[in-house]
Amino acid sequence: MTSIKQSKDGYSITERNQVKRRHDRGFYDYDTIHALLDAAMLCHVSYVIDGQPFCTPTFYWREESRLYWHGSSASRMLRNLADGEPACLTVTQLDSLVLARSGFNHSADYRSVMAFGKARLLDDPQEKERALVMMVDRLFPQRTAALRQASAQEIKATSVIFMDIEQASAKIRARGVVDDDEDYALSIYAERIPVTTILGAPEPCTRLLEGVERPAALSGYVAGRSLQDALAEAYLASFGKPTK
Amino acid sequence: MTSIKQSKDGYSITERNQVKRRHDRGFYDYDTIHALLDAAMLCHVSYVIDGQPFCTPTFYWREESRLYWHGSSASRMLRNLADGEPACLTVTQLDSLVLARSGFNHSADYRSVMAFGKARLLDDPQEKERALVMMVDRLFPQRTAALRQASAQEIKATSVIFMDIEQASAKIRARGVVDDDEDYALSIYAERIPVTTILGAPEPCTRLLEGVERPAALSGYVAGRSLQDALAEAYLASFGKPTK
Repeated sequence: MTSIKQSKDGYSITERNQVKRRHDRGFYDYDTIHALLDAAMLCHVSYVIDGQPFCTPTFYWREESRLYWHGSSASRMLRNLADGEPACLTVTQLDSLVLARSGFNHSADYRSVMAFGKARLLDDPQEKERALVMMVDRLFPQRTAALRQASAQEIKATSVIFMDIEQASAKIRARGVVDDDEDYALSIYAERIPVTTILGAPEPCTRLLEGVERPAALSGYVAGRSLQDALAEAYLASFGKPTK
Repeated sequence: MTSIKQSKDGYSITERNQVKRRHDRGFYDYDTIHALLDAAMLCHVSYVIDGQPFCTPTFYWREESRLYWHGSSASRMLRNLADGEPACLTVTQLDSLVLARSGFNHSADYRSVMAFGKARLLDDPQEKERALVMMVDRLFPQRTAALRQASAQEIKATSVIFMDIEQASAKIRARGVVDDDEDYALSIYAERIPVTTILGAPEPCTRLLEGVERPAALSGYVAGRSLQDALAEAYLASFGKPTK
């Protein structure tokens, strides 16, 4: 694929990642894409085995333009993912349902990122251990230091995949109800229904030893807060200002 | 692929859809799979173009063992999706973050469905119109009847894809904190943080004509309710008892 455009401070744009439909909704800059990636933890990864696409939900985390995800060394995805297999990792945040005056203009507000690259197994045991620390601490700052240490067996049983982002794009709709001009004159009800993923009240393990308190570093995870705010804050606490 | 097991009242199990990792979390029966599909609206669809997998977020809806999704006739997915292309449609619901006493046992509660089949364009204009009515009314019962009618141009500009599910599996974790037996003796904090996607207060369009009221059929969409409850109820209202 030939690069057809270089986005300023962002990912190059080719056929593969260009937002085709509604290109006014497309973004390619690092700031937009990385901020979206750092405010979520669940992605869907696509890969191909013998021509059959698989779409697997999994956790991921970011370090500069590298994405990581993990799984059991026994999982289908990891057993079949040879070094350098093309993959697509997508993160989607639903923000609202939009009820318009015509079926055609029914829509939703959303923010999504599609990232393309080649998935590779992280082989080096030291890098793997570092990545697994990152996985936990990215969500829960400083947590690994307080945990029972990982055993060699556990590290062996966990595979870490990484993908250097070759191209990526964000697609954002944040417009609420938009109807055809003439449809505003109709006696039809229209609305936007916001949708947010929020945290419930934390449920301490019933088998905690006496005197074991909730660490202060978890104070960002509080009932009623949006998951994405908590995740973005945790990412900042662990990694500092978002890096390009 | 050879069928290796027939699930009672459910999808056949082959290499393709068998839950490999943690197979105690795998389900293949229609009831479990369809209930999960009917309580969501956002899926991720994977398909392959020239060996490159794409993972696209989109809305979908179900009719028996058929899944539908739609898009602009101009979109990349639809332009490239020849009749009968293998696809994988995945729906994931995150239910909690799980903080255990070791990094290895950190986890999440979730419910997901992966469905496999061949994606095909719905060509017949009448079937297409019927599917588009279903798309809106599945979310908002009886809404299409109250809307400005779709124009021939709008119907033409919208492609509908369908996929008869050949295989599917659900994967469910609903266990909260689970640590290694000996780790419960450690002075380490552990908890489960519930996560729910909820509706905010509906925001009526600022350009509603005077006297236009919110239809009673939307009463299921109320601030603070979980999106999946509202969707499951709307599905029931439009389609009756879930069909196999």
